[in-house]
Order: sequence, then structure tokens, then C-alpha cells
Amino acid sequence: MMQRMKCTIQYDGTFFYGFQIQPTKRTVQGEIEQALKRMHRNQFVRITPSGRTDAGVHAKGQVFHFDTFLDIEESKWKKALSSLLPGDIFVVAVEKVPEDFHARFGVKVKEYRYQILNQYDPNIFTRQYHWHVPFPLDVEKMKEACPYLEGTHDFTSFSSAKTTVIGDRVRTIYRVECLQEGNELTIRVEGSGFLYNMVRIITGTLVEVGQGKKRPGEVQTILAGKDRTLAGLTAPPQGLFMWKVTYE
Amino acid sequence: MMQRMKCTIQYDGTFFYGFQIQPTKRTVQGEIEQALKRMHRNQFVRITPSGRTDAGVHAKGQVFHFDTFLDIEESKWKKALSSLLPGDIFVVAVEKVPEDFHARFGVKVKEYRYQILNQYDPNIFTRQYHWHVPFPLDVEKMKEACPYLEGTHDFTSFSSAKTTVIGDRVRTIYRVECLQEGNELTIRVEGSGFLYNMVRIITGTLVEVGQGKKRPGEVQTILAGKDRTLAGLTAPPQGLFMWKVTYE
Repeated sequence: MMQRMKCTIQYDGTFFYGFQIQPTKRTVQGEIEQALKRMHRNQFVRITPSGRTDAGVHAKGQVFHFDTFLDIEESKWKKALSSLLPGDIFVVAVEKVPEDFHARFGVKVKEYRYQILNQYDPNIFTRQYHWHVPFPLDVEKMKEACPYLEGTHDFTSFSSAKTTVIGDRVRTIYRVECLQEGNELTIRVEGSGFLYNMVRIITGTLVEVGQGKKRPGEVQTILAGKDRTLAGLTAPPQGLFMWKVTYE
Repeated sequence: MMQRMKCTIQYDGTFFYGFQIQPTKRTVQGEIEQALKRMHRNQFVRITPSGRTDAGVHAKGQVFHFDTFLDIEESKWKKALSSLLPGDIFVVAVEKVPEDFHARFGVKVKEYRYQILNQYDPNIFTRQYHWHVPFPLDVEKMKEACPYLEGTHDFTSFSSAKTTVIGDRVRTIYRVECLQEGNELTIRVEGSGFLYNMVRIITGTLVEVGQGKKRPGEVQTILAGKDRTLAGLTAPPQGLFMWKVTYE
């Protein structure tokens, strides 16, 4: 009998060409499917994630599902799968779920966090986990801009101009926060769904607000314009973490 | 006129085959000498460090000296050299020093720190900067063992069996400390000089004390035995940081 499994993982995106499988490239999906194949007597097992991440982007709580004919206890799944994965992927949990659970279509809330190091000198030991912004930022102005992004909007201005999206570009953002702790800034975004590069463009735009290049209220104009060129630059991938995925 | 310069740097050892220059391999010395050559109209400039570090070992405060014919202000040196170095080397300071300053022979105190993550689950985001020890450690026992290492001893038991040292293996250790902060342990060692792998073997031995494989007082017997096989395993390189070098 087939059993649907939900798996929560962390990964360090530094050495991956993103999540999605690609021939000849090292990807998160590729590593996991290879491990599952070894566990399933060389039979291929497809995994379905909550969504993809780009090269260099990390995950603290990515979720995927798959179906298995193996009859293993939940507690042993974690150990068995972990032992077959490389050091930059960590299995947080493996759970049995009903067969109608879907890692992508069942998402209720997704949380991303973007980390910025805002000081003149770089920190070479954490350079793969933040964006180093060496010029001063007015964090109060950035905080002022956040609420304008919340709610249901057409986020065309905040999505990669290259993307061809199936369906509209209307998304609902529940919360945007800019948290400061010393020289570390974290931009926290929670929403029902995201367009390609959306969190990185939100971050790039908030940083331009912090620099004084844009006024906080200008975010409204940018949204209304539905034009990618109105928003800020796309922040680099290494500061971005897929933080948490919540299901019904 | 030639001017002697003292330079303090940080580096992330992950992507280097150690400090010392090697043909065809990426080394810290190789990167720096290449940058200095570019600054000196293609003329080779030799650097002399306080000491080498192995592949994977990091530095928070490595020091080297070199001689230059360039007449640049101290403040501009830092910027000029930094701009020619890769993202995993950071220039902390460049200072003019008297011509008799010597980065290796002038060392008064050297401090190393070794970081251990002592919990069952790994932390994949900091895995290149600590040794993950997943079994419980009795930190009090480790602390009890530390003072036995302090003072002037023949450290043959705590040096790589492979090394052929010029001179004796007597060294003076001023301080050995084991500091605990949550699940993070730091072993801090200060001394006048160190043998090859000495801090990593001290760490490996202290961890065996923490595991109950060795008694704290056994450190005395190990020192007296002058035999590498008596001490613990060599801890892996990625937890080790050359922390600080102090001169007269």
C-alpha cells in the first residue's frame, strides 16, 4: 500500500544550482531523489516541494511530499533519509500524511526571511547568509514602507520581468516586517503565495527606501504602476531563506 | 626607500588549501602575494606570516609582514589591498612598522580558539566553522583537565607524529580554557608557540575527557609519556581559528 509522506528540510543553498532538478547540475531535488531511490530498491521516487528556490537561496523549513511503498516508522524515516543525504541538507522531520496532502497546493502561509548585514566592514564568515550593505540605512523609513506592501495587490512591479506567470499576478501578503538587531536587519514576509523573485525585489526596494532613493509612500505608486522598472533592484540570493510553510 | 608593513587579516579557510603557497592550489598566501604583485607594478613581494594554518582552518587575526617601495598612507593601504582580494579574505589593518619587526620571530603570545557544537542535530549553516559533536560531553571534566596543559611542557604527545620539528618539542602554554555558551563550546588556548596540529590534538583529547574515555588527570600521564598515541584524536580543521597574535 502506498503512503504519502510529508518531509521538512533545511538546506544551505550555497553549493546548489537551486532546488529544482537539472541534468548534470547539483540540485536539492536531485540529491533527495537520489537518496530516496537508494531507499526504494533503485526505484525512482518523485518529490513535490512547496515551491522552488533559486541558486544560493537557503531553506530553514522547506516542505515536500512523496509517496512510498516502504513501511517504516516516522521516527526511523528521519534517520534513514538523513544518513543518505550530504552535509548541506538536514532532515527536520518526516511524517505520515493523508493521501490528499499536497505540499504545493495545500500551502496556507509561506514565510520568507531576508538577512542584511548593515555595516561598513564585511563579515567573511557569514557572507553566504546575508547581503552586505555597507552604506547607512534609515531603518525607520524602511519600517514605514512595509505596511504598504501588506494586503492583496497586483505584484507585477515586484516580480521578475522575465517570468511568464500562469494566471494573474495578484497575491496576498499578510505581513511585512523589518527587524533590527544591532547591525543585522531581517525582512520578514508572510503571504499566501509569491511570484518569482518577489521577496528579493521587495528587499531591494526597501533598501532603496532606507538609502533615501525612494520615499516610503512611493511603494503605493510602484504597486499601482504594474511595471518592474519602478521597483528597486533584486537583492542577491544568499540573504534569502525560505523560513516556514504552514498547511491547513 | 623600503618600508616594512604589518598586516592583520581574517580568512575563511573553507576554500583554501591552507595558508602556505603551493603551485596550482588556491592558498591564502598565493592570493595575497598575487594582489601585492599587482600593486607593485608586477614585481613579486614575499609575505612572512606569524605561522601557517592548514586547509580548512580559519583566521580572525593572522598577521604577516612584507617590505614595500610604495609610499601609501596606512589608511589607504587597507582599502587598496582589500579591493584586490577575494571575498573570503578580509584586511583588518595595515600598519607601518620598524624594519626589525618580524611577524614570526617577534610573536609574544598566540591565541587559538576551537569551536564545538555539542548537540544531537547538526547546524548546516555553520558547519564549516565548528566540529559537530553529537554525543553528550561532561564539560566540568573538560574544564578540570585544562590546567594540566598549562605551563612549560614537552608536547610531543600533542603533536602530529608525522612532523619533523627543528629543535625540541618544549612549548609554554599560558592558558587553556573551555567556555560553554548553550550548546556551543569554545576551547581557548594561549601560548608562546605551538607544534603542528597541537591545538587540534588538545581539543580531541579534551573531548575524550568529556566523553569519559579519559580522566582529567590523565593529561599529566599523556604529557609525561611523550608519545602521540597516548593523546586523543586530532579534531577536524574547520573548528579551528587562529584568533590573535600579540607582539612585544
